[in-house]
Amino acid sequence: MTDTIQSAIDYMQETRDRMMEDYKALLRFPSISADPAYADDVCACADWIVSQLAAMGFENCEAIATEGLPVVYGEWLKAGADKPTILVYAHYDVQPVDPLPLWNSEPFEAVIRDGKIFARGASDNKAGVWGNLKTFEALLRANGTLPVNIKIMFEGEEESGSPSIEAFVEANKERLRADVLLNCDGDFAPADPKLYYGGRGMVTAQVRVSGPAADIHSGLYGGLVQNPLHVAGAIIGSFHDAAGRIQLPGYYDDVMEAAPAEKDRIEAGFQADSLLEGAGVDCFWGESIAPASERATVYPTLDIVGMWGGYQGPGIKTIIPAEAGFKITMRLAPDQDPRAISRTLKDYVESFATDTVQVECKIGENAWYFQLETEGPWLEAVQSAIEETVGLRAQLVRTGGSIPILGVFNRLIGLPITAFAFGHGEGIHSPNEYLEIDTFFTSLEAAARLYHNLGEVAG
Amino acid sequence: MTDTIQSAIDYMQETRDRMMEDYKALLRFPSISADPAYADDVCACADWIVSQLAAMGFENCEAIATEGLPVVYGEWLKAGADKPTILVYAHYDVQPVDPLPLWNSEPFEAVIRDGKIFARGASDNKAGVWGNLKTFEALLRANGTLPVNIKIMFEGEEESGSPSIEAFVEANKERLRADVLLNCDGDFAPADPKLYYGGRGMVTAQVRVSGPAADIHSGLYGGLVQNPLHVAGAIIGSFHDAAGRIQLPGYYDDVMEAAPAEKDRIEAGFQADSLLEGAGVDCFWGESIAPASERATVYPTLDIVGMWGGYQGPGIKTIIPAEAGFKITMRLAPDQDPRAISRTLKDYVESFATDTVQVECKIGENAWYFQLETEGPWLEAVQSAIEETVGLRAQLVRTGGSIPILGVFNRLIGLPITAFAFGHGEGIHSPNEYLEIDTFFTSLEAAARLYHNLGEVAG
Repeated sequence: MTDTIQSAIDYMQETRDRMMEDYKALLRFPSISADPAYADDVCACADWIVSQLAAMGFENCEAIATEGLPVVYGEWLKAGADKPTILVYAHYDVQPVDPLPLWNSEPFEAVIRDGKIFARGASDNKAGVWGNLKTFEALLRANGTLPVNIKIMFEGEEESGSPSIEAFVEANKERLRADVLLNCDGDFAPADPKLYYGGRGMVTAQVRVSGPAADIHSGLYGGLVQNPLHVAGAIIGSFHDAAGRIQLPGYYDDVMEAAPAEKDRIEAGFQADSLLEGAGVDCFWGESIAPASERATVYPTLDIVGMWGGYQGPGIKTIIPAEAGFKITMRLAPDQDPRAISRTLKDYVESFATDTVQVECKIGENAWYFQLETEGPWLEAVQSAIEETVGLRAQLVRTGGSIPILGVFNRLIGLPITAFAFGHGEGIHSPNEYLEIDTFFTSLEAAARLYHNLGEVAG
Repeated sequence: MTDTIQSAIDYMQETRDRMMEDYKALLRFPSISADPAYADDVCACADWIVSQLAAMGFENCEAIATEGLPVVYGEWLKAGADKPTILVYAHYDVQPVDPLPLWNSEPFEAVIRDGKIFARGASDNKAGVWGNLKTFEALLRANGTLPVNIKIMFEGEEESGSPSIEAFVEANKERLRADVLLNCDGDFAPADPKLYYGGRGMVTAQVRVSGPAADIHSGLYGGLVQNPLHVAGAIIGSFHDAAGRIQLPGYYDDVMEAAPAEKDRIEAGFQADSLLEGAGVDCFWGESIAPASERATVYPTLDIVGMWGGYQGPGIKTIIPAEAGFKITMRLAPDQDPRAISRTLKDYVESFATDTVQVECKIGENAWYFQLETEGPWLEAVQSAIEETVGLRAQLVRTGGSIPILGVFNRLIGLPITAFAFGHGEGIHSPNEYLEIDTFFTSLEAAARLYHNLGEVAG
């Protein structure tokens, strides 16, 4: 079997230049999911990937229509019933490119310089699509077969909030049945490999607070007409007590204390100094609630991410403004139900309405926390592959951020999930996104070992 | 004496067309005080008025330099020691003209159409300057003398907050000595004459609340780093209790209950229905503090006139923003010291600072309440002149607004103050400002009677 891996790796190295040239074809599709003007390009990109899968011998390849943009599906199930089936996730859609003037080359031209390939999506996450395709190609060329059964699910809406994925998964549960889900959306840094094994849920909301029909004169109306900015301030100011504890009713009811092993993992991955430096503050806030490492990862938060109202220009304008608004992001602890929390938030915020000031809270995104394997054979397959390739095991890191799609899979598919990413890049969601070609090829080697290792797990 | 008035009125009517043509010369000066680019134009306008006064026989005419833009001074003191001396206030500077595209004719061209003269400043307040000049000219032509002694004080910085007037008055107390101050900044509507006899003081401030060195990720830092928008909201939300009572320490200490006669006057001038309609609300707010009429006029207020922070665009941005800000306007009751209140405000707001969130409160404007005569011979001279001219006496109205310059005069000069305005106009501080020519000439007639009446008051 080791010979098979080496043959695949040899093939990867031999075809390296052509592989990167061919990658440009995928990168040239401006598959921007957030902008409806690019819908045809997203679909064309899906069709192209389908054709690539089919050409490699995958079966039932299809760009499956959803309520939004298509999911690329394809399967290779010839490894045998005793081999596990791996559901491989990545996404082929990309972020918008604004601000375009800051790019040093056209975002969809895909230019190679200094050992990097520059393009929107080069790292996030067409590398996950291309990395898998090229690993399978190498394994098939070297051995005529794959060590595991594979089902491909490449999403086309990840960068626009995955609005259709839940309905898609519900409708395709049978088709997506597998032994483990491998998330290939991420970053692989050979010198410091990390694996984000858990993260928080999320609720976002926007609040509108409106009073007088128009801005009115503060001399004429001051003392007579309630100012919606005061109500907005009262809401914002009421969310936390002095210690930083969130005041929404029952907000901590489902917050469970982490298990000792989990606390240790969290603490081990927590870098207080670099966080303090990154924020430019001298100390953290909210110490009485829980240790900083846990507040940043397994405790819920509520942040006003923007607010506005009235006159913002130079000098003064003597008005009672007609309205104010603000945006909220909440990060949810494991087991906090984002829909229940959303209702609590909306009820709480709207309870501030008065006879003359209206308050409307619109819920935006809604995501469950996510949880990947922290032990067991699936994770071990990943760790061994990385260790065999770069001599290090990935550090298991709990993030305070959110990966909504993984929360959906946790709840809807109920499979164990592990993760592996292709290559290191920078400029994700920013100008001049790139993928390092060397680290991409390192990850291809590791992927060949990974699929081999997965084949050794009892199916 | 009545013959003298009629001769002056006849002269006004005979020279009506020329008088309006000549007014254009004054209106053509773009005497915008708020924009330093127009400083030379403001000075040229002052010099031109000085030359007009001198040509009419006024003495010691001068554009007196201040720390900012000049005050036009001139005196005519030949009425005799037994006649009172009237200090006449108006301002010759004007508001900026933006937005220029909304003007139907050039703002400084001064175009007459439909019985109106259109120009920036045509009503506010070059009408006060020109109305006085033409009244004095008519009285002098008809009679060779004026019925009172006159001192002219035409300000050049009213529209930019009168930054130099306090120092000017302090430095020129002797020169400005008089029996009564006549404020000619205002509007005269013959069908519904009003006289604003009192108004509130004012304090404005801007607050900056800053936390992390830059916007930081709410997933990474949520729960760890204090969000400056929460602190801003806490400050804004803390200013009032649920009943609308302002929570600044001692804020109501100097708020005195109005005298019964004053309460009656306030109530008589209070139009609840039109205020409710103007604000587009169903009811007022703060009823438990005092009756609505008094809350709008003699009780202090605190309004946030603008606030901002973080991301205000469409969708969401998952950040803890680096900073927030807001602007405050307070209207002060009679006897509330704006400087003491400013200190209280600054101390209160800045007390919300924490280990990691800085709060800075910068005080802007600072104005005392003002109080004009509500009875007595000076006011009666105004009322009789109006009644003799249009058959109505001016309604005495207390405003909740502020006229900072009058508060300065109340405290620094200590003269009785009354008011009279020239003509009715619209578009003050807006595009297409105009003065109605008919109502301007009605007010000129009334002014001839006013100065005659003032001459009858024992000096």
